[in-house]
Amino acid sequence: MSQEIPYKIYLEESEMPTRWYNLRADMKNKPAPLLNPQTHQPMTFEELRGVFCDELVRQELDDTTPFVDIPQEIRDFYKMYRPSPLVRAYCLEKKLDTPAKIYYKFEGNNTSGSHKLNSAIAQAYYAKQQGLKGVCTETGAGQWGTALSMACAYLGLDCKVYMVKCSYEQKPFRREVMRTYGASVTPSPSMETSVGRKILQAHPNTTGSLGCAISEAVEAATTRPGYRYVLGSVLSQVMLHQSIIGLESKAALDKYGVKPDLIIGCAGGGSNLGGLIAPFMGEVLRGEAAYRFIAVEPASCPSFTRGKFAYDFCDTGMVCPLAKMYTLGSGFIPSASHAGGLRYHGMSSVLSQLYHDGYMEARAVEQTSVFAAAEEFARCEGILPAPESSHAIRVAMDEALRCKQTGEAKTILFGLTGTGYFDMMAYERYHDGAMTDSVPTEEELQAGFAGLPQV
Amino acid sequence: MSQEIPYKIYLEESEMPTRWYNLRADMKNKPAPLLNPQTHQPMTFEELRGVFCDELVRQELDDTTPFVDIPQEIRDFYKMYRPSPLVRAYCLEKKLDTPAKIYYKFEGNNTSGSHKLNSAIAQAYYAKQQGLKGVCTETGAGQWGTALSMACAYLGLDCKVYMVKCSYEQKPFRREVMRTYGASVTPSPSMETSVGRKILQAHPNTTGSLGCAISEAVEAATTRPGYRYVLGSVLSQVMLHQSIIGLESKAALDKYGVKPDLIIGCAGGGSNLGGLIAPFMGEVLRGEAAYRFIAVEPASCPSFTRGKFAYDFCDTGMVCPLAKMYTLGSGFIPSASHAGGLRYHGMSSVLSQLYHDGYMEARAVEQTSVFAAAEEFARCEGILPAPESSHAIRVAMDEALRCKQTGEAKTILFGLTGTGYFDMMAYERYHDGAMTDSVPTEEELQAGFAGLPQV
Repeated sequence: MSQEIPYKIYLEESEMPTRWYNLRADMKNKPAPLLNPQTHQPMTFEELRGVFCDELVRQELDDTTPFVDIPQEIRDFYKMYRPSPLVRAYCLEKKLDTPAKIYYKFEGNNTSGSHKLNSAIAQAYYAKQQGLKGVCTETGAGQWGTALSMACAYLGLDCKVYMVKCSYEQKPFRREVMRTYGASVTPSPSMETSVGRKILQAHPNTTGSLGCAISEAVEAATTRPGYRYVLGSVLSQVMLHQSIIGLESKAALDKYGVKPDLIIGCAGGGSNLGGLIAPFMGEVLRGEAAYRFIAVEPASCPSFTRGKFAYDFCDTGMVCPLAKMYTLGSGFIPSASHAGGLRYHGMSSVLSQLYHDGYMEARAVEQTSVFAAAEEFARCEGILPAPESSHAIRVAMDEALRCKQTGEAKTILFGLTGTGYFDMMAYERYHDGAMTDSVPTEEELQAGFAGLPQV
Repeated sequence: MSQEIPYKIYLEESEMPTRWYNLRADMKNKPAPLLNPQTHQPMTFEELRGVFCDELVRQELDDTTPFVDIPQEIRDFYKMYRPSPLVRAYCLEKKLDTPAKIYYKFEGNNTSGSHKLNSAIAQAYYAKQQGLKGVCTETGAGQWGTALSMACAYLGLDCKVYMVKCSYEQKPFRREVMRTYGASVTPSPSMETSVGRKILQAHPNTTGSLGCAISEAVEAATTRPGYRYVLGSVLSQVMLHQSIIGLESKAALDKYGVKPDLIIGCAGGGSNLGGLIAPFMGEVLRGEAAYRFIAVEPASCPSFTRGKFAYDFCDTGMVCPLAKMYTLGSGFIPSASHAGGLRYHGMSSVLSQLYHDGYMEARAVEQTSVFAAAEEFARCEGILPAPESSHAIRVAMDEALRCKQTGEAKTILFGLTGTGYFDMMAYERYHDGAMTDSVPTEEELQAGFAGLPQV
């Protein structure tokens, strides 16, 4: 069988998914609802529609409808860069000399460089449908901001991005990509918002944080007529849109009669992992199949492996709803030595519930071992991976090497979420031996937990 | 018919070309032979094999064999990133409101970011086959050096790259990509070679040039046992390997019964254009079909449109064989304001002969209009193009707009050679209004021609 499997499995346009899959519909224990940060009551449609556009609020709140039709205009946009290839890692298997069969779903073949575009176009589309003028968002490493800029340029929508100041300064190229797509990019914290001004007054030399940029973007979106806020991860609506990753992967594997034993993805806010596992996890929840799932996170920001399952703020400014999730506390900031994304303190409520219920494993890995895996992967598979994606590569390689020891010919599927072309500064640190690992101390974790709200 | 054509046409692995096509076999007027720079006699196999590995010398000298089998190991490598998509530019057509049908062959979906990988793997493969230890080359913008590094990492071959000093300093990320693939990268001119030391003595503050880096790489290759020199463009062997671009394009169009009227590619040394047009030009030469071909070059380095068809040196150090080609003189240096590649003074001998014989048109375009086209393309087609590739986009758009005026529904095929992710500094200059156009004066051209050798 394996002889017949091509290096890359592409679906025909006619085979592409026409519906997203809402994993929550098959969960017995639903993710806990978002709460109003003042009243601690579940957020209502009316409360949320001031922040997000109406259709996205409906998607956020709907935990019973299993399938959602993908609008034709989004499907047309998907056709420009999807289906993404499902790759059989023949060269990596050979290099590792493993009996394991390794597949990866590669989401980096688009200018945003990652899977983020899948949800960006959906969120921009619904904003446009509602007749809005534009959207506001934040970006850290810049992948989400780039993806949203591309989607807005395509649809003719204003795009306002608050970019964490240190990234704005250290990643001028990402900023220029966004400008190429017509976005307005502001370093955060800025003087444009009251929350930004407040933070700057207290910490004039701050280089910003994602949580702070979120607060600014939410304020900008809710105070400008015709604007709404959009977010690239964590939310259940994002998991819904990203299910396209898993649906395509499953369709491609099904074509060749392949069933994975192990499904691995990196986890920051959870959007890639949630999307990749969705249809497979659905089979598990419905009792139709069994798979092992592994979430991989950085040891420097270990939400699953060392966090608490609790209600927490999604942002530093505490203006967003409370979400029940595995969290390190909204005040937790990973070590400055940590490269790339996956630095979010919390985690998707959907994935948190599944992890809590024992459907998923989690593993924390250190970054030098992640970059070693990235380099080995690049040299045999060609693609230079993003540091985020390389967390999944690390564990996929570890599992393949375990198969070599045990002689088991397991089938491994992992998510290769993106490319590292804008992360060469981190690679340089790794090449120069200047990269270090860091793990939060117990005291640092306790300090983060101390900020959890009493719900 | 056009309704049924997908956004992207992918070939199955079984439909991928198994042979390269050697356009020279069908040319009545063969390209003039390379000459020994001292004796002005045609270079022999024995003379060339000190510089290039044996099989590549055979390919360079063979202008009669129409097809060359692609070795299985190269075909396997191709499968990791090929077939590249042939894209129907539905969104661009809609944006331009043109009756023209636009297709582009996108070669940027690999980590080298361009078509250069097609020849890099071939050249590295033959070096490995011959039992060599490694290869030496030069790189300007960095695409060729990256491609060669990837190919050498895959095959376990040493890779030594002389990188034009100003690029080495201004493009540290390209350098880091090469390091990720294990290449040794030296800024040129360097103290490592006698030609480098001579140039540094005469011009201590020089920031280098491609011609000078070529001289250093050739010296390094010919003085180290077990090494050979490799070159990413201009040579006829490179045109042969790059024919994979045109062969795939033609196979994809044939699947849907589409025949292009107009085929457009950017031209620096000519490797992409030569590869794209190869099978189509072959039909023309054999009297089987008619197509219009347009080579697009920068107005700041106009080899075809303002150069001379003459024997010239390929490098500044004048150590390489002489080639008969359209050239601005090996001493010609394009204005410093010129962004991106396509800065080579000469042009492929194959394309030069075809242009001389009237089989091809050429057009020179100015860079601000090229970046305007690049930005418009990015916003509707998603892909952020390389400045080089954007020369072809500019003319494809101009031709599509002409169709709008005349009402003709022409079919246009152009080569999208790569992505611009490492060219954001040039985009920034464009966004900031700091980019200027420059065209060499008559005096500058005459000064370049004055250095042509008397053959």
